[in-house]
Amino acid sequence: MAAVTAVTRWRLLLVLSAAALGAAGAPQPPNILLLLMDDMGWGDLGVYGEPSRETPNLDRMAAEGMLFPNFYTANPLCSPSRAALLTGRLPIRNGFYTTSGHARNAYTPQEIVGGIPDSERLLPELLKEAGYVSKIVGKWHLGHRPQFHPLKHGFDEWFGSPNCHFGPYDNRARPNIPVYRDWEMVGRYYEEFPINLKTGEANLTQIYLQVMGAWAGRALDAGRWASGRRRTLCSPPQEALDFIRRQQAARRPFFLYWAVDATHAPVYASKPFLGTSQRGRYGDAVREIDDSVGKILHSLQDLGIAESTFVFFTSDNGAALISAPKQGGSNGPFLCGKQTTFEGGMREPAVAWWPGRIPAGQVSHQLGSIMDLFTTSLSLAGLEPPRDRAIDGLSLLPAMLQGQLMDRPIFYYRGNTLMAVTLGQYKAHFWTWTNSWEEFRQGIDFCPGQNVSGVTTHTQEEHTRLPLIFHLGRDPGERFPLSFASTEYLDALRRITPVVRQHQEALIPGQPQLNVCNQAVMNWAPPGCEKLGKCLTPPESVPEKCSWPH
Amino acid sequence: MAAVTAVTRWRLLLVLSAAALGAAGAPQPPNILLLLMDDMGWGDLGVYGEPSRETPNLDRMAAEGMLFPNFYTANPLCSPSRAALLTGRLPIRNGFYTTSGHARNAYTPQEIVGGIPDSERLLPELLKEAGYVSKIVGKWHLGHRPQFHPLKHGFDEWFGSPNCHFGPYDNRARPNIPVYRDWEMVGRYYEEFPINLKTGEANLTQIYLQVMGAWAGRALDAGRWASGRRRTLCSPPQEALDFIRRQQAARRPFFLYWAVDATHAPVYASKPFLGTSQRGRYGDAVREIDDSVGKILHSLQDLGIAESTFVFFTSDNGAALISAPKQGGSNGPFLCGKQTTFEGGMREPAVAWWPGRIPAGQVSHQLGSIMDLFTTSLSLAGLEPPRDRAIDGLSLLPAMLQGQLMDRPIFYYRGNTLMAVTLGQYKAHFWTWTNSWEEFRQGIDFCPGQNVSGVTTHTQEEHTRLPLIFHLGRDPGERFPLSFASTEYLDALRRITPVVRQHQEALIPGQPQLNVCNQAVMNWAPPGCEKLGKCLTPPESVPEKCSWPH
Repeated sequence: MAAVTAVTRWRLLLVLSAAALGAAGAPQPPNILLLLMDDMGWGDLGVYGEPSRETPNLDRMAAEGMLFPNFYTANPLCSPSRAALLTGRLPIRNGFYTTSGHARNAYTPQEIVGGIPDSERLLPELLKEAGYVSKIVGKWHLGHRPQFHPLKHGFDEWFGSPNCHFGPYDNRARPNIPVYRDWEMVGRYYEEFPINLKTGEANLTQIYLQVMGAWAGRALDAGRWASGRRRTLCSPPQEALDFIRRQQAARRPFFLYWAVDATHAPVYASKPFLGTSQRGRYGDAVREIDDSVGKILHSLQDLGIAESTFVFFTSDNGAALISAPKQGGSNGPFLCGKQTTFEGGMREPAVAWWPGRIPAGQVSHQLGSIMDLFTTSLSLAGLEPPRDRAIDGLSLLPAMLQGQLMDRPIFYYRGNTLMAVTLGQYKAHFWTWTNSWEEFRQGIDFCPGQNVSGVTTHTQEEHTRLPLIFHLGRDPGERFPLSFASTEYLDALRRITPVVRQHQEALIPGQPQLNVCNQAVMNWAPPGCEKLGKCLTPPESVPEKCSWPH
Repeated sequence: MAAVTAVTRWRLLLVLSAAALGAAGAPQPPNILLLLMDDMGWGDLGVYGEPSRETPNLDRMAAEGMLFPNFYTANPLCSPSRAALLTGRLPIRNGFYTTSGHARNAYTPQEIVGGIPDSERLLPELLKEAGYVSKIVGKWHLGHRPQFHPLKHGFDEWFGSPNCHFGPYDNRARPNIPVYRDWEMVGRYYEEFPINLKTGEANLTQIYLQVMGAWAGRALDAGRWASGRRRTLCSPPQEALDFIRRQQAARRPFFLYWAVDATHAPVYASKPFLGTSQRGRYGDAVREIDDSVGKILHSLQDLGIAESTFVFFTSDNGAALISAPKQGGSNGPFLCGKQTTFEGGMREPAVAWWPGRIPAGQVSHQLGSIMDLFTTSLSLAGLEPPRDRAIDGLSLLPAMLQGQLMDRPIFYYRGNTLMAVTLGQYKAHFWTWTNSWEEFRQGIDFCPGQNVSGVTTHTQEEHTRLPLIFHLGRDPGERFPLSFASTEYLDALRRITPVVRQHQEALIPGQPQLNVCNQAVMNWAPPGCEKLGKCLTPPESVPEKCSWPH
């Protein structure tokens, strides 16, 4: 209901506002720019208390915009979160989960068979109805097989990669991950797009920002480009800044999804940023991203479109403490990190920026979700969310423009298991698990230095009858469960129970996409590989159950 | 050396600056206002990442001033930290420590025999030489016997208490703690100055701020004041705001030491603030203090003396996690809390504010110490620190006015044991200890939910030959000790070793003040008790060794 009201209100604003008039004098909805980080934690920004305070541009964005300290992703892992952002739906609905074990995290490595189902309606696809041109820069992660290509799901342009920048691989047992421009690959990680694992040097963030010289030069220097390939390079790369400029010149509303991945292990930064952070290489990556965000916001201001562009910054999941401290970030005061349904795994940095519309220097305590970016973006475009399916996102416009606070639950899933829910200040855990003792003994630790007895468990502990409940205001670190006998506990449980029951009764799970793996589906011969002479021969097709140990 | 240079430079500034001219046209040094919190943690302010972000006034103070994310107290406990602030010297030098056990924390409960030695020269005493009028509002904590009275150590006025606001006591086995106005007590906690332990209501922060009606009304309501006592109330209380106004009117430079204690367990707030925080009662106390700081800063601006008043906000030690979550705060991403020499015990929130002098919105990564407030204040007054003794504080004026970064170590002591040192980004632990297994098993936990193997030890672990070293930039939570075999470890140790050796060789410990306790020295009959009919009879004098279990 709130979303519908906001849309109506927004349409009125559009009609009334001269700033929203496009070239032809017709009302033009605002541009939408979603800046999605990879494994960046709540505590990684100065404005969120990172002690080295090395994010002046993001801190300024917050000072000029609205900060959401209670903003959540939809899953403690990358692919499902990204699918949730673009569909406005929980992974359990859109299929980005696995049923191959109880409460298992799953994602899209290159042997995954599944991906975003055709039946899902993605944000860029819907925004087309309002005349938007959409681009994804960076990591897609919703499947890499042909049917899952982002340009088949509403995006008009893509520069980036379908999978994580893991590697280097030998191109025999496992191909290196391709980098795409639009429909075709233009190279591979560790080949045309080098990442030096020893020094941490890579120019990818600069490329995603668009500094033509950076990757072209680098690739040319590497001497790997034949004349045929060089033509690809000589057509100017059209990443974030260039895309913005082109759409502004054409006076078309745009949706830019800037999904950089420098803070995902192996973390990287370009040479000018390497060694500049007090935090080591992870901090170098953050500094380069912060600098890029500053350039993007400045560019919007220089082009005179800051007041007609809605910008939102967030991250796909909590910092990967398993990679800390050299390759992982900070979740501030929160418990554990990526892979877990504690706050450190799912509470995210979040900043909205829209000068002249969103009041400056505000903090909203609205419980927000990455899925709200779907519904909010539709509202901005004057569109309704699809009515033929459950949508979990709500429009944040009432929170952002009128300072409203809307009651809503936050659900924390691993696989198809509802692990926890937050309602107001109370979080109830129905299941607790970090990872198995077996993994933990091998050094895989999602909660280094943290150990809350009975909470950060290494066996899957069920609490569905008597959930562990925390008051997140007094106890953001989830260290002090409420006493089962307290009035406060009983009151909280009484409020939470019907919300969960309603959610579970109405839930129609999607077809799980992340159950089956197959070496044959890896990135052996992506489209465009022939032109580059980079096609590889796939092995025999052997579908098997993917292994999701945690 | 840096301090001397700064003083010289500052004198020049004073001469050149019209704003610094007093009534008679003579240069007048700036007023000094030190806001010292009690058990407030690094993570308790919005600007330091507290998720509920309930400190708009302190956040504004930081936005208009300079934030020090790397600022330390001198001890993880209240009395020694306060003695260090006012003497500019480590507790091991000024006597605020115990030798009655290895690495023991000690303070000044009311049975303590010791206190601040006459031989120590306190900041207000020295500031007199430059014409300052000094007042302490709130908690003194440097001894409560007659010779330790703050007005015998340089302060001109006092409103507050010599010990913690523990109680209520029965006035037979143990007297309630007195509250003083200047030389004489004006009542006792839980009697004329009620603290409702059940509701958390107390008007003390308002009194410390100065809202006449608040405590006078309260005390009168309580019906405990005889006519003779009422006279005391009718002479207006002269706490923070009133003191500032009087000094401004008299055109005398002032030093106000505002040492409020609402965030020390039992935490309290006045009725208008109770129940207003998302964080519970602790948050209510923080909100009331934040509101008071806002009023103080506004008052300086209204009086036109903001540009001639140096204000510094910090805390005496880390949040008391032992009292969390209902009565204790947050140390953000840092390890453990009060009582420990991990970062959570000694890294403090710190904000400097001096409009027109300290540039707005700056962050200084200077390693700062509470003892620097002594030397900085002297520099501001155009005075030199005493030359006849070791002074640990340095002047922060070069950091605040010129953005300089000065190399200096931070020493972490428990009792007379050097537990750790930080130099640059590296922290070396020579001893690790939280508390004994025996205490821990009784539920006394200084690091709830945190457990870093071999670091948060419950036995006193010696590492003097091969210290545990952490890189605080990459690993502010002290979770990942550097590998002993790494070049980084060896380089850090090579830098740290001579600094520690020099410190220890030159160290002349003061006479330990916190070894002896005696029931007879408690606050039985403080000066002024006769007028109030509140004198109690002390028991027989039995000096004994104080018990300091951790």
